Amino acid sequence: MIYLDNAATTRPLSGAVAEAERYLTEEYFNPSARYHGGAEVSRMLSRARDFLLRAVADPADFELIFTSCGTEADNQAIFSAARRGNAVTTAGEHAAVFESYKTLKNRGVEPRFAPIRADGSVDADALVSLVDEKTTLVSVVHVNNETGAVNDIAAIAKRVKAKNPRAVFLSDGVQAFGKLPFRLTKEIDFYAVSAHKIGGIKGTGALIRRKGCTVLAPYVIGGGQESGMRSGTENTFGIAAFFHAAEEKFSSLRVDGERLKGYREQLWEMLDHSIFTRISPENGSPYILTVSAKGLRGEILQRELWDRGVAVGTGSACSSKKPFSRVIEACGYGEDTLYGVIRMSFSPATTEQEIRNAAQTINACARERKENV
Amino acid sequence: MIYLDNAATTRPLSGAVAEAERYLTEEYFNPSARYHGGAEVSRMLSRARDFLLRAVADPADFELIFTSCGTEADNQAIFSAARRGNAVTTAGEHAAVFESYKTLKNRGVEPRFAPIRADGSVDADALVSLVDEKTTLVSVVHVNNETGAVNDIAAIAKRVKAKNPRAVFLSDGVQAFGKLPFRLTKEIDFYAVSAHKIGGIKGTGALIRRKGCTVLAPYVIGGGQESGMRSGTENTFGIAAFFHAAEEKFSSLRVDGERLKGYREQLWEMLDHSIFTRISPENGSPYILTVSAKGLRGEILQRELWDRGVAVGTGSACSSKKPFSRVIEACGYGEDTLYGVIRMSFSPATTEQEIRNAAQTINACARERKENV
Repeated sequence: MIYLDNAATTRPLSGAVAEAERYLTEEYFNPSARYHGGAEVSRMLSRARDFLLRAVADPADFELIFTSCGTEADNQAIFSAARRGNAVTTAGEHAAVFESYKTLKNRGVEPRFAPIRADGSVDADALVSLVDEKTTLVSVVHVNNETGAVNDIAAIAKRVKAKNPRAVFLSDGVQAFGKLPFRLTKEIDFYAVSAHKIGGIKGTGALIRRKGCTVLAPYVIGGGQESGMRSGTENTFGIAAFFHAAEEKFSSLRVDGERLKGYREQLWEMLDHSIFTRISPENGSPYILTVSAKGLRGEILQRELWDRGVAVGTGSACSSKKPFSRVIEACGYGEDTLYGVIRMSFSPATTEQEIRNAAQTINACARERKENV
Repeated sequence: MIYLDNAATTRPLSGAVAEAERYLTEEYFNPSARYHGGAEVSRMLSRARDFLLRAVADPADFELIFTSCGTEADNQAIFSAARRGNAVTTAGEHAAVFESYKTLKNRGVEPRFAPIRADGSVDADALVSLVDEKTTLVSVVHVNNETGAVNDIAAIAKRVKAKNPRAVFLSDGVQAFGKLPFRLTKEIDFYAVSAHKIGGIKGTGALIRRKGCTVLAPYVIGGGQESGMRSGTENTFGIAAFFHAAEEKFSSLRVDGERLKGYREQLWEMLDHSIFTRISPENGSPYILTVSAKGLRGEILQRELWDRGVAVGTGSACSSKKPFSRVIEACGYGEDTLYGVIRMSFSPATTEQEIRNAAQTINACARERKENV
């Protein structure tokens, strides 16, 4: 199987699985237990927290709270910060942010959605124009999970804060963390990340918050774990796996990115341009190439490709109950393009040979479908 | 290591770890992905959901939503149901319920706490007397996690509904599920359970809800997983492990309970009654024996016992930042008893030899401390 659906979820790294096993079968103690075994696990949590935070931020200014997933981290930041007035975001957000914003009106907060460009990046001028003195929250996804477009969140956050210094700035960094070189700047208040997109395992995410930003409310209330911000027995083995995966990813982040950028372009070059239109921008994430086979159905291509040993996505797996992608629609494409979307997403384990084989299979499959249309 | 802190967390069953590994390393696909691999994982989720539900409830009347832990399940039910008037619970609840109730006043809901008896069970008459026409929610823990006392939640729910049929009834079943024979009755609306207390792994829980009870609101919003009630990529391997653990536990639930009840009594008989006072009732959960070494510090005993190869608890690991247990205090004990509390909690893997050895070590350790006081 050539697995090119890494933006949906990655195959866990073998080292991450080994770490998880260690904390499942040997160091399985509850980290709140005051005996040695519990304290040892608690120390591992501290080391993991410290590494994951330092990877993207200065621990003098930021702190990290483990959550059960990236979606929960987004939710916690949004529902803590958006409490009145209006809240601004983009039409290119992941469902974790987009759907949460849609519910804000039930809380008396007006949600505002800035348009995105054809490549999926936000129109920053339009976004900033939506910010006013009543804006309590602005959310901008770091890497668009459907197109790979990268938003310059540091610059956007700066512009937002210049217009309204009290507005809280959140970025969903799920597709950026461990993939793009980046440091959190002081205008960014919250940053949501996930383990299973970088070789860790499902069920573990984190919310990084700027210490000076005091709006955060506990989201799950109980035993007071995570400084009272996220109760429930800590997912120790998932955090250990996240720690391992991040150590591996951050150690080769730049070189992996360069290589995958080459593969992404190679794949695009090899695809039949009489069938496929490119949606992903060249300056986007090296990890994502989204294209459309106009007139075909991405969903059908996806199933046939699976049968021939290639796994691809059709947009966000998280919202796959829709006939086509809300985000690609917001990019301005018509229905013939929308229905034909497939997303190829990579991991550092992806090889050049896989890219070559995948391109041939994708072309062959699309040509056959084309003949049958 | 003789591990007698199974109420804090259990060592995952080897079969559960094997299932987790399978869904981590082979079937790691996102269950929302529409290709074969994703659909296969999605089918496993359905089978797991069905088994876990049928184990305690009639699927015609109830449904099950996977959550990230028991605490989250409790929170989701509480904050969905308690929206005005008052909400009633007991002084013997786990922090997931107790601490959530304490925050209800910020939402304009009056929390009411019914007293508990010396063994940790709720005074049902007192609880029912707190219920009135303005009560929107009543929560009663099924098995007290600190003493093992069992509340007859079916009978209590019936009395609550007789007084106010509109009140929603929740029970935290974390220490009961997979341990006590029990079926959900029609007066119970919500039941919260957890995987890692029965040989599954941390990071997975579930909320069972009566279909007729429509108050439930989504707690984590995003891609619409779990029928829109709990978004975020499903913790597939954790659910697979929960499934396996429940299959194993429910298959021998009664025989395990009988055997452990014998061990619990054997342990109590062997403990030095000139030092230890029993807190757990005889008719409580076979899985928990809580005692107090009056005049000693349970915390110190716990650490010394660890050094001699016996892991015990000192009450709920989840609230271990307190000097002594809020729940045991609510049982009516004085400080000399409170400080000396230790909890021994068992699993079906606990052996008679371990019980004998543990009793000797606990006695020896306590006698030495006693001489040094």
